[in-house]
Amino acid sequence: MATVALLSDEDLSPEVAAVFADIRAVRGTDYVNNFWRALANDPSLLKATWGRLKDVMAPGALDPLIKEMLYVAVSTANGCEYCTHSHTAGARAKGMTDAQYGELLAVIGMAMQTNGLVNAMQVPVDEAFEV
Amino acid sequence: MATVALLSDEDLSPEVAAVFADIRAVRGTDYVNNFWRALANDPSLLKATWGRLKDVMAPGALDPLIKEMLYVAVSTANGCEYCTHSHTAGARAKGMTDAQYGELLAVIGMAMQTNGLVNAMQVPVDEAFEV
Amino acid sequence: MATVALLSDEDLSPEVAAVFADIRAVRGTDYVNNFWRALANDPSLLKATWGRLKDVMAPGALDPLIKEMLYVAVSTANGCEYCTHSHTAGARAKGMTDAQYGELLAVIGMAMQTNGLVNAMQVPVDEAFEV
Amino acid sequence: MATVALLSDEDLSPEVAAVFADIRAVRGTDYVNNFWRALANDPSLLKATWGRLKDVMAPGALDPLIKEMLYVAVSTANGCEYCTHSHTAGARAKGMTDAQYGELLAVIGMAMQTNGLVNAMQVPVDEAFEV
Amino acid sequence: MATVALLSDEDLSPEVAAVFADIRAVRGTDYVNNFWRALANDPSLLKATWGRLKDVMAPGALDPLIKEMLYVAVSTANGCEYCTHSHTAGARAKGMTDAQYGELLAVIGMAMQTNGLVNAMQVPVDEAFEV
Amino acid sequence: MATVALLSDEDLSPEVAAVFADIRAVRGTDYVNNFWRALANDPSLLKATWGRLKDVMAPGALDPLIKEMLYVAVSTANGCEYCTHSHTAGARAKGMTDAQYGELLAVIGMAMQTNGLVNAMQVPVDEAFEV
Repeated sequence: MATVALLSDEDLSPEVAAVFADIRAVRGTDYVNNFWRALANDPSLLKATWGRLKDVMAPGALDPLIKEMLYVAVSTANGCEYCTHSHTAGARAKGMTDAQYGELLAVIGMAMQTNGLVNAMQVPVDEAFEV
Repeated sequence: MATVALLSDEDLSPEVAAVFADIRAVRGTDYVNNFWRALANDPSLLKATWGRLKDVMAPGALDPLIKEMLYVAVSTANGCEYCTHSHTAGARAKGMTDAQYGELLAVIGMAMQTNGLVNAMQVPVDEAFEV
Repeated sequence: MATVALLSDEDLSPEVAAVFADIRAVRGTDYVNNFWRALANDPSLLKATWGRLKDVMAPGALDPLIKEMLYVAVSTANGCEYCTHSHTAGARAKGMTDAQYGELLAVIGMAMQTNGLVNAMQVPVDEAFEV
Repeated sequence: MATVALLSDEDLSPEVAAVFADIRAVRGTDYVNNFWRALANDPSLLKATWGRLKDVMAPGALDPLIKEMLYVAVSTANGCEYCTHSHTAGARAKGMTDAQYGELLAVIGMAMQTNGLVNAMQVPVDEAFEV
Repeated sequence: MATVALLSDEDLSPEVAAVFADIRAVRGTDYVNNFWRALANDPSLLKATWGRLKDVMAPGALDPLIKEMLYVAVSTANGCEYCTHSHTAGARAKGMTDAQYGELLAVIGMAMQTNGLVNAMQVPVDEAFEV
Repeated sequence: MATVALLSDEDLSPEVAAVFADIRAVRGTDYVNNFWRALANDPSLLKATWGRLKDVMAPGALDPLIKEMLYVAVSTANGCEYCTHSHTAGARAKGMTDAQYGELLAVIGMAMQTNGLVNAMQVPVDEAFEV
């Protein structure tokens, strides 16, 4: 269960309906997932979040697939179940292979491990890393 | 300060010295950073960690630069100062451009934000995300 | 499922029953939620936790509604599903409006985002922030 | 040290200088803190972040002081040193008293504690919390 | 639901079947839990993870029961539901008493609380703690 | 720097001085570390925190050394620099050997790694783990 209602298409104000129409147009699918249906309870938060996400995840210096994998990495470290599922599905939809997914998991596991070791030993930053 | 001494090259047992030699050979540099000098206090932990890191970060289905950026993403979410510095430096050394770094930051910020929104609203996972 | 049994009213020792009676009296409701029914397996932990919570969440320099919203903020950042639900419900019961909830979500999302950006760039603390 | 240079006023492009001018105008101070000087390396990220922060932290259904305290709560849970310092200073500048700060700390400590207990016992969410 | 299929015994390649056989032999039980059935999709990740876990959790300077409790402590702080369940069950199977579990919970709660207070106040490390 | 002043012995109210005297008596040392000097700004928070810590960390079903190591495990996962230093020093003062510390580090690293893998794959909890 969520802390808010998940709005269905019949429940939307014109302002929210316009955002949903843009989500559908940009993504090329009629499906609007639960995150947006939850955010729809607060139109200004919905608009700001979608507007920014659309920009950030667009093709640029990094490929959209790489961006989805980075999103999975952050979401995993934060223990966000929904985000992990939605962006893993997003990465697969953008062509992530099983081999790439296996390496993504391996890097996440390795990073978590050395994050723990470094935090436990409180290793001081090398001067060599300075910009 | 660290919770353990950072071992210098003169302090190393033959077992540890062999790992340091492999680090230098694989990375093509004489510089061995503080993380390994801290781990050197426990030769078996050093060997296991380096052995696994060498495998995980090697070229494969994902480019080593992408792996470094994924490492930065996890380390940032975990708030690991040392790891963030070392892998940002690593990504730069592997050719990360300013534009790529800017997009990496933008994705991290976006993921953190929606992780927070999703966790706050406890959005249920869509059936559409099922494997 | 939980790692411990959730004790029902029939299962309680006199010591635990007295704590439950105090929870009911302080909160003005007969309902005792699952957290306390789980903690009831360890009477000393139950007493210490309830005793402290009662003091901390009482009206003081901060309004109880504000305290519930702060609780939601921490619980969200820690990814605690149960705590997020229970304290969001608590905030609503204390009068949180939809507009206040929308702004709470927006602040959480903003803070998560800039926490990520700051951790990624490892921004040094300004001297101007010193006490 | 940061992973990027902190830009001084002499280093700014006109686009970034305009954002800094807005920060100064909105806050009523000439001081621009390090977070913005780090973000200034990526003008689009700077503009998006400041634009959103300005909206989110403005007076609304919640008082700006309450928003700063919520920001401290999230930043603390995420272990963000810089954010904790900057928003604690921000809360003080907006009138947070010592008594309010003491209660903020107490709520953070309490929430962290019960987040840990709940996560350890994996307490199931009460149906009573459903919207 | 998981992001990958959970492989049953009939689905295993000879390489994976050999790892499962070792898990059964080392643990003295025919039961192989879901974590390994998920990892089985990537044989090299499965082998590396099981090989390391077997070494780390073996009796040594710390008792296996203590290691399970440490595992619960880390998993709880990270909010990992599965890991908390599996290692709490593991600790009970190794003889953890209710009294020990109550104290484990109390220490976790205390540590979470003071972690929050320290992070909020940004207490500087005492020189007396230096190695 | 901290967000509050660290109080020296000359700055203490009688109420706080009494707590400091108890800290010294229980620990058998004249040294009072910075955490308590920061908390001393809020006498009621100081008293509640010290009172609870004294109970939780006392010998019981778990040895005080084990409790210190559990504290290090939680503090590391939460990235709390001060807490990691103070409780690692505390564990050493209670007799933690280098071999025990090496295994503590190895378990922390292992747990972090599998926490990440499990969170990434969202492995469902086995029915076999039910109480």
